[in-house]
Amino acid sequence: MKKGVMRPGHVQLRVLDMAKALEHYVELLGLIEVDRDEQGRVYLKAWTETDKFSVVLREADEPGMDFMAFKVIDDACLSRLAGELQEFGCQVEELPAGELKDCGRRVQFTSPSGHRFELFAQKQVTGKWGLEEVNPEAWPRGLKGMRAVRFDHCLLYGDELDETLRLFTEVLGFTLAEQVLDGGTRIAQFLSLCMKAHDVAFILHPEKGRFHHASFFLETWEDVLRAADLISMTDTSIDIGPTRHGLTHGKTIYFFDPSGNRNEVFCGGDYHYPDHPVVTWTADQLGKAIFYHDRVLNERFLTVLT
Amino acid sequence: MKKGVMRPGHVQLRVLDMAKALEHYVELLGLIEVDRDEQGRVYLKAWTETDKFSVVLREADEPGMDFMAFKVIDDACLSRLAGELQEFGCQVEELPAGELKDCGRRVQFTSPSGHRFELFAQKQVTGKWGLEEVNPEAWPRGLKGMRAVRFDHCLLYGDELDETLRLFTEVLGFTLAEQVLDGGTRIAQFLSLCMKAHDVAFILHPEKGRFHHASFFLETWEDVLRAADLISMTDTSIDIGPTRHGLTHGKTIYFFDPSGNRNEVFCGGDYHYPDHPVVTWTADQLGKAIFYHDRVLNERFLTVLT
Amino acid sequence: MKKGVMRPGHVQLRVLDMAKALEHYVELLGLIEVDRDEQGRVYLKAWTETDKFSVVLREADEPGMDFMAFKVIDDACLSRLAGELQEFGCQVEELPAGELKDCGRRVQFTSPSGHRFELFAQKQVTGKWGLEEVNPEAWPRGLKGMRAVRFDHCLLYGDELDETLRLFTEVLGFTLAEQVLDGGTRIAQFLSLCMKAHDVAFILHPEKGRFHHASFFLETWEDVLRAADLISMTDTSIDIGPTRHGLTHGKTIYFFDPSGNRNEVFCGGDYHYPDHPVVTWTADQLGKAIFYHDRVLNERFLTVLT
Amino acid sequence: MKKGVMRPGHVQLRVLDMAKALEHYVELLGLIEVDRDEQGRVYLKAWTETDKFSVVLREADEPGMDFMAFKVIDDACLSRLAGELQEFGCQVEELPAGELKDCGRRVQFTSPSGHRFELFAQKQVTGKWGLEEVNPEAWPRGLKGMRAVRFDHCLLYGDELDETLRLFTEVLGFTLAEQVLDGGTRIAQFLSLCMKAHDVAFILHPEKGRFHHASFFLETWEDVLRAADLISMTDTSIDIGPTRHGLTHGKTIYFFDPSGNRNEVFCGGDYHYPDHPVVTWTADQLGKAIFYHDRVLNERFLTVLT
Repeated sequence: MKKGVMRPGHVQLRVLDMAKALEHYVELLGLIEVDRDEQGRVYLKAWTETDKFSVVLREADEPGMDFMAFKVIDDACLSRLAGELQEFGCQVEELPAGELKDCGRRVQFTSPSGHRFELFAQKQVTGKWGLEEVNPEAWPRGLKGMRAVRFDHCLLYGDELDETLRLFTEVLGFTLAEQVLDGGTRIAQFLSLCMKAHDVAFILHPEKGRFHHASFFLETWEDVLRAADLISMTDTSIDIGPTRHGLTHGKTIYFFDPSGNRNEVFCGGDYHYPDHPVVTWTADQLGKAIFYHDRVLNERFLTVLT
Repeated sequence: MKKGVMRPGHVQLRVLDMAKALEHYVELLGLIEVDRDEQGRVYLKAWTETDKFSVVLREADEPGMDFMAFKVIDDACLSRLAGELQEFGCQVEELPAGELKDCGRRVQFTSPSGHRFELFAQKQVTGKWGLEEVNPEAWPRGLKGMRAVRFDHCLLYGDELDETLRLFTEVLGFTLAEQVLDGGTRIAQFLSLCMKAHDVAFILHPEKGRFHHASFFLETWEDVLRAADLISMTDTSIDIGPTRHGLTHGKTIYFFDPSGNRNEVFCGGDYHYPDHPVVTWTADQLGKAIFYHDRVLNERFLTVLT
Repeated sequence: MKKGVMRPGHVQLRVLDMAKALEHYVELLGLIEVDRDEQGRVYLKAWTETDKFSVVLREADEPGMDFMAFKVIDDACLSRLAGELQEFGCQVEELPAGELKDCGRRVQFTSPSGHRFELFAQKQVTGKWGLEEVNPEAWPRGLKGMRAVRFDHCLLYGDELDETLRLFTEVLGFTLAEQVLDGGTRIAQFLSLCMKAHDVAFILHPEKGRFHHASFFLETWEDVLRAADLISMTDTSIDIGPTRHGLTHGKTIYFFDPSGNRNEVFCGGDYHYPDHPVVTWTADQLGKAIFYHDRVLNERFLTVLT
Repeated sequence: MKKGVMRPGHVQLRVLDMAKALEHYVELLGLIEVDRDEQGRVYLKAWTETDKFSVVLREADEPGMDFMAFKVIDDACLSRLAGELQEFGCQVEELPAGELKDCGRRVQFTSPSGHRFELFAQKQVTGKWGLEEVNPEAWPRGLKGMRAVRFDHCLLYGDELDETLRLFTEVLGFTLAEQVLDGGTRIAQFLSLCMKAHDVAFILHPEKGRFHHASFFLETWEDVLRAADLISMTDTSIDIGPTRHGLTHGKTIYFFDPSGNRNEVFCGGDYHYPDHPVVTWTADQLGKAIFYHDRVLNERFLTVLT
């Protein structure tokens, strides 16, 4: 949060069939539908989020991620960062308030890795779903499926990791929490705004702009098991898990939405402060870095992207 | 317990190198070494067991299981069952008290599936490890590794499942808790003495007398995760997990001892009473029956036996 | 199970207001209403139970327990035990099949402690709630509230514990798993049929026939927390917990139904086999025996009875 | 982190007997002793902390807290905040580097509530205890007792909560995460630097400068149970728990060190970002705010202070 960027704010995903997508994200993941817009986009949130939405689904012919957004601390910060992004060499585009419903103006840019990001400072505050602001209960009754706690981060595949790192640390105030190095080459980098092991992560890939997964936080390892059970009960396509990562040590499971976009739900994992030494994994231990228990990579995890 | 057979009492396993085996069973699994005998066999127990030992390791050129034992309620029951086993057509051999240290006389027989079993009525009662009998604490301090709670069951591969089922239910008083059927063919059968989903289980295999795994109980899904972490930290060969079974719904992880014998640690799972309807899985759902989350079989799980 | 008695089969409780009681037992505890009879009694079950019902609620002017039942292995066993109960000196009454809906004939008797018990051999088998018998999922969707797993045991207050112990062990085949002794006086006794730390328990009290609580099993310590949260959210009267017992080491929480009957939900706890040494707690450690963490008694726990 | 203050850095506690205190903080809490100084102070850390120490114990005639420290992002920030503290009206004292071993210069001040705080920018970085920086395992083997994860926060009793709030938010960049209000009077305030529900908290009390507890983070609710068990096994004085708070919804247990200083270990709880609406509890719900399950206050919790 050194530069005023607070946290991931939302992600817009492309889905092939909206009805099936909602069955997945609402009934299985447990997100809550909060609105729709004239373009047909559907807005969802996880129950602990105080802003109106964190996931936007758009029907399209190809799956993947349109953009990922970070919320900044105020509008002055947004303007300042827009300038700094241009100085860094990013092409910056401003979208007006209301282009996403109840969201303020957004500053979009493309990272050297080829991904579309955006910053915003304002979004309607609707409070945690199902709880009072005064004397709130511990959790709301009526949550569905995996009861996802929050949209947590995205993992993205692309090239130019060095320049991407420089952009996120120097301009946006992220710190490098963890990395995988193959000698002098960065294979993976996990970037944090504060306390979380990653708010966004990149893995080296020859193609720019590919989407690996959107990740949602769960509260406990019991919840990861419940998620796994629900994946099986609903005949949802699983990737891998329940397991633990070496990187961040999060406890996790991966699966696919009906359009082929990968999702993660996870819990735990290390916390990170800006003064923490960077955690490095070496490329020869990549299997263990990714899947701590199996210690071998699942080919699908590396190659199935949207 | 309809015929006086109470529970699995011990299993004797062959290991290629005793020092490495003890590193595995004591430091990793968390069993406690309680004695050795003149043959060089080492006796181990899990901490909640009140009898002196439940695992016997014997150094040999080939891994595998020598025999699995069940404890019966008293000596009269042992004599009666010896007779009934002979009537069933088993060749019965009696081993004298003391052949296993501090264990009473044992009645050995071979099941139609080709496995060596034995019954006994007496073993030295040493109480739970590390706890007082009066005003006992919740658990002992000083447990190692996975802190295995008890030796729970064995899964065995062999043929003649129908006759084996008849032996275990009619003579020994087990009930059939779960089964996998391929039309009229029994693929798997899980047999219970009382409340546990299985005290012994068999899977159809063309070769007689093969050993799939010895299983140890853990208390929680958190403990299964800890076990998985320890498997990784100690560079132990993993088979699969953490995951859940469809059969019994236990939460589980599989790995190998240094000799190649498979171990399971698991928690939870359904309970079974003698009047419960048999749970049937169909062969077309065998993947989900074995690995509830992945819903596909891991070839290794079906073919690596000792 | 030495004498053919398998497990607790049901308990009939008196409630002051049926609608409020159902709100409690169905919406909060998560039992499932399965039937009603002409007397206005309501029949409930927990989801893992294969028999039709395990809790019967009867509207009355005073709360408390009418009777607790155990299921025996078959009708011949029921007849034999009826005879043995008479020989022991119990006055035995037979209730015809159908007096409780879809339940076979029942043999009622009063224990020396002043409690009404009954035995039965037949009840309609309806299978686990919400699951198929073939290829069953791990758990059913749609469970409510605490999602109680099964009716587990009752704890009863009364006198003549020695004679009650003799009845349950010699006639009914229970074993004494745990006890609290004050010198030569039995203060508490926990009796097991097989593997469970208690299927019924008694605490010494000058008045005969008092009811302390009916207990329901949960799967995990996370579920005990969820139960505690739900107790708070529904403004249900709590007694104590979440905590652990010294006796049995179960993890537990106590609360009251709207009529003042105490309920427990718990998980874990030691397992017991008939050959296990009796676990003894001494009266000077009664606080720790009952509430392992606080190590002092809560007056309410000892004196509020129905 | 709006003003460069990152997190709680350490707390110095007074203990009556150092040997007994170390038995408590090392063997029971699981902190690691890392150094001692010429004054006889003992330096401890929790295993996930990358800086050298987080708890300093000083032998004295009275228990209590000498001071609590926050780490700031760099030395320039430290100087800037020293100036702003003086402008706010705090008397500021600078302690030289090395006064606490391997810690840089510290800026001390007293809050309106009467508590001594300090800021520092530098401390020797020793890395997580027992783990490599390259390819680190999930957790170190050899942790003791409760295996405390980190020193998390302090709760302090004193007056002038309004001015204290103004100091912490305006000068130090905390945000108000939660509060208890009695009409217009602040009863309690929980202040966060980022993501945590509280980095420091204050409760209204007529006397200035009193210490309620130092709190340490655990990973799971299972760990809270383990902590409770260990409290009982070591005959440590318990205050209350395991339970959940209404405020922050953390899962918790309280107990006392041998000098009478209260400790908390807890897990979970809500996360907080600077733009989150303040969560308010009303004074009429104070019981539920403090102890979510019991919904009544334990007098000891409010009045036993050091």
